[in-house]
Amino acid sequence: MYLALLTLVEAGDEVLIPNPGFVAYPTITRMTGGCPTYYQLPASNDFSFDLDEFKLRLSSKTKVVVCTSPSNPTGRTLSRDELSGMAQAVAESGSGAFIISDEIYRDLYYTGERPASISEFYPRTVVISGLSKSMCMTGWRLGWILGDPGVIAAAHLLHGYVTTCASTVSQKAALAAWSQEASEARQQHRNTFQRRRDHLVGLIRNECDLRCVTPEGAFYTMVDIGRYGSSMEVAEAMLEAGVVTVPGNAFGSEGEGFLRCSFCADLPVLTEGVARMTAALKSLR
Amino acid sequence: MYLALLTLVEAGDEVLIPNPGFVAYPTITRMTGGCPTYYQLPASNDFSFDLDEFKLRLSSKTKVVVCTSPSNPTGRTLSRDELSGMAQAVAESGSGAFIISDEIYRDLYYTGERPASISEFYPRTVVISGLSKSMCMTGWRLGWILGDPGVIAAAHLLHGYVTTCASTVSQKAALAAWSQEASEARQQHRNTFQRRRDHLVGLIRNECDLRCVTPEGAFYTMVDIGRYGSSMEVAEAMLEAGVVTVPGNAFGSEGEGFLRCSFCADLPVLTEGVARMTAALKSLR
Repeated sequence: MYLALLTLVEAGDEVLIPNPGFVAYPTITRMTGGCPTYYQLPASNDFSFDLDEFKLRLSSKTKVVVCTSPSNPTGRTLSRDELSGMAQAVAESGSGAFIISDEIYRDLYYTGERPASISEFYPRTVVISGLSKSMCMTGWRLGWILGDPGVIAAAHLLHGYVTTCASTVSQKAALAAWSQEASEARQQHRNTFQRRRDHLVGLIRNECDLRCVTPEGAFYTMVDIGRYGSSMEVAEAMLEAGVVTVPGNAFGSEGEGFLRCSFCADLPVLTEGVARMTAALKSLR
Repeated sequence: MYLALLTLVEAGDEVLIPNPGFVAYPTITRMTGGCPTYYQLPASNDFSFDLDEFKLRLSSKTKVVVCTSPSNPTGRTLSRDELSGMAQAVAESGSGAFIISDEIYRDLYYTGERPASISEFYPRTVVISGLSKSMCMTGWRLGWILGDPGVIAAAHLLHGYVTTCASTVSQKAALAAWSQEASEARQQHRNTFQRRRDHLVGLIRNECDLRCVTPEGAFYTMVDIGRYGSSMEVAEAMLEAGVVTVPGNAFGSEGEGFLRCSFCADLPVLTEGVARMTAALKSLR
């Protein structure tokens, strides 16, 4: 993401970012001289894409639109219709903007079918992905950028000065991700995460009596804790109870009133975590 | 280097760079919004440090001075007196500049004693180093930055957005560099490179009849090919003869008239390389 924005953004350009969205987007935008602007994924509609609101945020200064599907923090994906609508809106805006499609979670889906990419609908798309999530290879630091040859040539040049290259050992290890074995591992991985998702979402609704988003991908659910206090207050109470969550407002104003809860852990750990959350909520009442 | 300059440089700041010096310094300076300025290491004096000329290049806008010892491309080191003189000059300039000390070649020396670091003479020094050269671990991409805690805290924050972190595997592998075995390997490595240096420098002087710099560190010698044509012309002739060199002007105007020749290869390869160079030079006469 840093390299993509460093490549595309000039001083004063607007970068249109989802709210809520990954915490690093606004900071990286400012580091590359850009100005972050935001389109809302309304909490009131389980953080679905809102095409009408999105259109209002496009301007002649919009240089880049960030599209994240599946989303961190919401786990929501954009449907083919939504991606098509977003693409058409950007094309019709006359801004000539690029879309950066952050697809780091694209192989973690629970809908039976791999989510579509906005690159299918919009030619000026730069795709960012990597092996951190799909292959549990976070520590290997292996990612990639795809797009127009001119953009990639510029990104490659800048990459040489910023990081030289990814570690050779990581590049060699990464080749395993294109094997049959890895393809089967990804399917198993999805099955595991789907069980964890169903387990966590069920417990939060039944044990905590809280509303939460059913994620279609990634490994997070947004939990509505608005009636107990601010995101930060409730997250701190959870931390004291020994449960790490992320306050929703860290992802933008639209995340206020929510906690991002991860289901990376095994089922017994999730069960224990929700038990502690339930106890913590009682103390907040 | 990119992270260090990104951390220290604001738009319009001057970064004072050695001429000749590593090719990436000016580009990285511009990427971080700075303006490259240069101090000369005169070719006429085998690229020694010239304190008087250096003082003339310091200005109130100098934010960073880059000090490289041993140098790429020249292989020269700065003596304790020269480092002390540089430190005093920067201190007395009133610019409050930082010195970035690029010490990537500091463990490759042929003088009996490890070269001094300017950090011993100037407190506002940021040291850059890594395992690429001293441990032949180039592909592992493992480096570090040392300095004032405030600078390091800022660099650490930016690092999180630029590259997140070095690969975990590389970090674990790097621990071997602080073992007794690695210490012995570094000594062997120095001995190997000293033999290669003496072999190459001898052949260039005796077989090619060319003047070249006796490097005190790193693994390069600057070869004076001025009487055969420009750096680029002669480098291209060498390339046609199957010998890769780097034209000296790639490192700055002071490198014009020279070729940077590496002695990373084994003795027979160096012998063959010089034989080809000798033949190529005949065709240029």
